[in-house]
Amino acid sequence: MHFSAAQDLTTRALQQVGRVIQPQNTMAVLAGIQLQAENGRLLLSATDLSSHIAAEIPCDVQEPGSVVLPGSTLTELIQRLPTATFDLTSDPNTGRSTIRYGRNKAIINGYGQELLPTFPMLEDTQARLELPTGTLGTLSRQLLFAVSREDSRPILKGVYVKLGTGRLVFVSTDGTRLSHSWLPIPDYRGPQKEVVLPHKFFSEGARLNQNNPVTLTLGTGLVELTAPGTTFTTRLLEGQFPDYDRVIPQEFIAECRVSIADLRGSLERVNLLAAKDHSTPVAVHLEDGTIDLSTQTADIGQAQETVEAQTHGQALDILFNPTYILDALKALEGDEALLQFSGIQSPAKIMDAEGAQYFHVLLPLRQMI
Amino acid sequence: MHFSAAQDLTTRALQQVGRVIQPQNTMAVLAGIQLQAENGRLLLSATDLSSHIAAEIPCDVQEPGSVVLPGSTLTELIQRLPTATFDLTSDPNTGRSTIRYGRNKAIINGYGQELLPTFPMLEDTQARLELPTGTLGTLSRQLLFAVSREDSRPILKGVYVKLGTGRLVFVSTDGTRLSHSWLPIPDYRGPQKEVVLPHKFFSEGARLNQNNPVTLTLGTGLVELTAPGTTFTTRLLEGQFPDYDRVIPQEFIAECRVSIADLRGSLERVNLLAAKDHSTPVAVHLEDGTIDLSTQTADIGQAQETVEAQTHGQALDILFNPTYILDALKALEGDEALLQFSGIQSPAKIMDAEGAQYFHVLLPLRQMI
Repeated sequence: MHFSAAQDLTTRALQQVGRVIQPQNTMAVLAGIQLQAENGRLLLSATDLSSHIAAEIPCDVQEPGSVVLPGSTLTELIQRLPTATFDLTSDPNTGRSTIRYGRNKAIINGYGQELLPTFPMLEDTQARLELPTGTLGTLSRQLLFAVSREDSRPILKGVYVKLGTGRLVFVSTDGTRLSHSWLPIPDYRGPQKEVVLPHKFFSEGARLNQNNPVTLTLGTGLVELTAPGTTFTTRLLEGQFPDYDRVIPQEFIAECRVSIADLRGSLERVNLLAAKDHSTPVAVHLEDGTIDLSTQTADIGQAQETVEAQTHGQALDILFNPTYILDALKALEGDEALLQFSGIQSPAKIMDAEGAQYFHVLLPLRQMI
Repeated sequence: MHFSAAQDLTTRALQQVGRVIQPQNTMAVLAGIQLQAENGRLLLSATDLSSHIAAEIPCDVQEPGSVVLPGSTLTELIQRLPTATFDLTSDPNTGRSTIRYGRNKAIINGYGQELLPTFPMLEDTQARLELPTGTLGTLSRQLLFAVSREDSRPILKGVYVKLGTGRLVFVSTDGTRLSHSWLPIPDYRGPQKEVVLPHKFFSEGARLNQNNPVTLTLGTGLVELTAPGTTFTTRLLEGQFPDYDRVIPQEFIAECRVSIADLRGSLERVNLLAAKDHSTPVAVHLEDGTIDLSTQTADIGQAQETVEAQTHGQALDILFNPTYILDALKALEGDEALLQFSGIQSPAKIMDAEGAQYFHVLLPLRQMI
């Protein structure tokens, strides 16, 4: 293989595909980035066996071919080159690749003739959607904090997606809290579908979607996301996502509107007097026109704050994990939150006072009396 | 104790004194910050037994007294207060302290009646000097990377300081490299002195000296640094600093002037093909008008670069630890470096081509042939 390419385009493409590489690999070659030069283009790809990224840039091909080179060494070298272009020649038998730039050169040992394991490509298209710029960033912020970190119920490590009539619904839950978001898809005429996407689909997709719209394509067992020049493919999670509808409260005994900044500030302060192991609840007391928050820990101390709020319904005392309410408030975008309580042992609903496309459901901590 | 103080001034003072606290303490109270209110001022202090910082701010004292409170909880709370001032009351028996701000309050448990262990204060003044703003920052960058990290020769973990006639000289060395810097002190009329200061004197001093001139005072076994409102005191290191003069080369067989940016860029690239355990030398070949740099590692690859330079003296081949040359170049401030070689097994001298107050001495790696 022999090609010349632009240093800046190659650097960007290497950084993009390199993100899928896992630091701990079972197979040595998975630390590599595959380069494939043909027909005036360079295809760069990497995989961790559960996901795959491919990027394509124009290049000047003198001799077509492929090679896999160690991802981090190659990326760090190319991004530090002082010249606008470079020239790469690979020995097809050994994989040894010589990179020439100006009058200097570096030789990187490859993985011989070994290429990356084949990653399945999308064969059928069951549904296709355009997502506007920034959509996956917003969804990541709303959904990912509520995804389970536990291996005990692997399906909860993913995000449930339901493609329905006019709506694309997203749900994540770790068993004690739940995030629910939806997007209007008025032009979608395809079939209804339910899938569970891995965490990485959103975190990686948020980057691809940051400055461009992206196209999401669902196929059998796979989902693909394409941005200009880049394709990210990942496997769907297998298993049954729990029936979440029944935990979303529909009737409320009390509710309040409160400034998000005020409530966050108060919670952050009272949380300082909570135990570092997150075992201390924050006691929330809702009354006419105020929310009182307090924590108490034998060896650290205690705190009590009052926040003004517009309240409706009955007075109540309810316990929460303070970190969990803070997580929920951080996902909101407006100035004011709406908190709705369905009972002191029943889930509460937290959302932007003005927003209708996202809400969070949080189970209170149990209290004996 | 009972006082009111400004939130912003107190936050800044807490952050300043808190830096001396070591995360792992032998005594619980060493995680605390001592507050002492009297005569319209609040004195804040902390120590790790080898150093001590005290800061002073104005405050409104209703009842004088002292207490030690957990440093990180107190600092995080005060810096998050939404009010311009706060009020702190301590129970003299239990140390329990109530912080009131607006209509809210937090209670932090203290360390009972226990205060911080007494840190020795400077009793005699053997020498006193003013250091202009930024001096300790520059010295830190020049000296600290060459300080030893090994416990085997503890004296090398400090910086040697010689207060002579008209000059203040600083030397650090880890046995294979040495940094040497000096400051003119034309107005100093005090005695000559030689001391070894701990690493922390420079890193902490650089912060105090960032926006203010500071006063350095040497006493028996102690050195004190004062900036407006803050005093940092630390113990001198005990022991004999090695005689470094004999390792500074005086005669050279070759030298070159080279762009610092070009040489750094080339070294960073060839270093990518060196083993990650720093065992790969960079081979430097000096010839008429050029420096050739190359590295070679069996399993990674190899690199070769040529940098233009103004050379004088004989051609030579010499091996260095590439990371060590990079460290030396990063401490330079100008555009051009001067490299002077005294032999292929003898120390080389690296400095700014125009600078006369700093140089670095680096031992080459041994070569059999």
